[in-house]
Amino acid sequence: MCELLAMSANVPTDIVFSFTGLAQRGGVTGPHVDGWGITFYEGKGSRTFKDACPSSESHIAKLIQSYPIKSEVVVSHIRQANRGCVSLENTHPFTRELWGRYWTYAHNGQLSDYEDKFIVSRFQPVGDTDSEQAFCWILEEVVKKFGEQEPKELKPVFTFIAGLADEIRALGVFNMILSDGDHLMSYCSNNLCYITRKAPFGQAKLIDTDVVIDFKKETTPNDIVTVIATRPLTNNEEWNILGAGDWELFCKGEKV
Amino acid sequence: MCELLAMSANVPTDIVFSFTGLAQRGGVTGPHVDGWGITFYEGKGSRTFKDACPSSESHIAKLIQSYPIKSEVVVSHIRQANRGCVSLENTHPFTRELWGRYWTYAHNGQLSDYEDKFIVSRFQPVGDTDSEQAFCWILEEVVKKFGEQEPKELKPVFTFIAGLADEIRALGVFNMILSDGDHLMSYCSNNLCYITRKAPFGQAKLIDTDVVIDFKKETTPNDIVTVIATRPLTNNEEWNILGAGDWELFCKGEKV
Repeated sequence: MCELLAMSANVPTDIVFSFTGLAQRGGVTGPHVDGWGITFYEGKGSRTFKDACPSSESHIAKLIQSYPIKSEVVVSHIRQANRGCVSLENTHPFTRELWGRYWTYAHNGQLSDYEDKFIVSRFQPVGDTDSEQAFCWILEEVVKKFGEQEPKELKPVFTFIAGLADEIRALGVFNMILSDGDHLMSYCSNNLCYITRKAPFGQAKLIDTDVVIDFKKETTPNDIVTVIATRPLTNNEEWNILGAGDWELFCKGEKV
Repeated sequence: MCELLAMSANVPTDIVFSFTGLAQRGGVTGPHVDGWGITFYEGKGSRTFKDACPSSESHIAKLIQSYPIKSEVVVSHIRQANRGCVSLENTHPFTRELWGRYWTYAHNGQLSDYEDKFIVSRFQPVGDTDSEQAFCWILEEVVKKFGEQEPKELKPVFTFIAGLADEIRALGVFNMILSDGDHLMSYCSNNLCYITRKAPFGQAKLIDTDVVIDFKKETTPNDIVTVIATRPLTNNEEWNILGAGDWELFCKGEKV
């Protein structure tokens, strides 16, 4: 099992608070010691920080916690390897370009008997995880269905992907985060929840380490920020728990 | 104009020394203040650090200079914008997956009248630079020529790419670095040089800042490391200067 974390916001927002909680699960409060990664979108561009060592010990994770990168969409993952060895090429998130956008994906769970299903050619995995293979298959099927040029509306693409995710979930556990840079999709198999924070903002207290934040001091009244995580990161707020097969699409912090 | 830096080595090697010289050109000894990026391959995996701010001021550039990431192939670029605005999506290096490999590319120079030539569909640029458009066109043509499955030999692919680079050079200045993770290709239009360091190792002194390194202390006798740069980074070693249309292919530090 791994831990997912993602954010969608209507203004560039840093994820230092939530990432600080997540990073603890990579070796301190959780067993996820097989690497971690985080992708920040800034406009159409994106950058991914990755390390194959535990997030609780990583120099780069410390940088992320001390250097607030402001972003409208973030996708993060800390890994406990099940399929695929511990290496950089097996570290999430994975990114591919399609339609002049960077698509970023992270998966929590484990799949079986997928080799015959995930036939790919245009998008090929670089590492040897079930996760990346599933990502490549999703994009392969999207291109088969929608072609090489971006359709006018992207929501039908995500609806189509949710159908593919239903098929993948039949092969095991498939909690997924996917973004095209504008939208943030979450698909739940058994462990995914989210919270949307907006005015009036209050305080939040991390579960995994002794940190409290007062969002009132960090935000403006128009800010809307949704955070998605495998398990709630705070213990004094109400998180929305997704059920098996549930999925949500967010854009600029709000449900689409 | 921008500055390129790349490395091919037969053992995982850090590029801290060379990057320290290059980073100075991003705002201190050079005018390249419009962002920078560096890609490290570690096995088949790769990670890219990017910033749209000057490398001489970047927190992340400081991390790269203080945290030696060991890699067999590195591609780096600092940018002075000519075509395309200053933003993360326009910051080199650019990466695309093809044949289950990450291909990483950086360009120094400027192209004109390329819009009708660089027709792409399968690989589309995310930003609006001539550089990324040229990269997408190269990969598009490679797939047209070699198909969706990796050929047994990769050298003919690079020879084909050198032919494409000749066509691109007709549209302006095209100094290019390209890697598939194993090979490192350099193509020269007007500014590119390289040095291959192997035993017996000596001292090297950076031009751009007052740093001297004794490679004897940092290496083993079997190490072979090639560094490619826009202009020589050291002033007490002999660099090989490439001419217009020259290209070289390296693997594990040595010419292929």
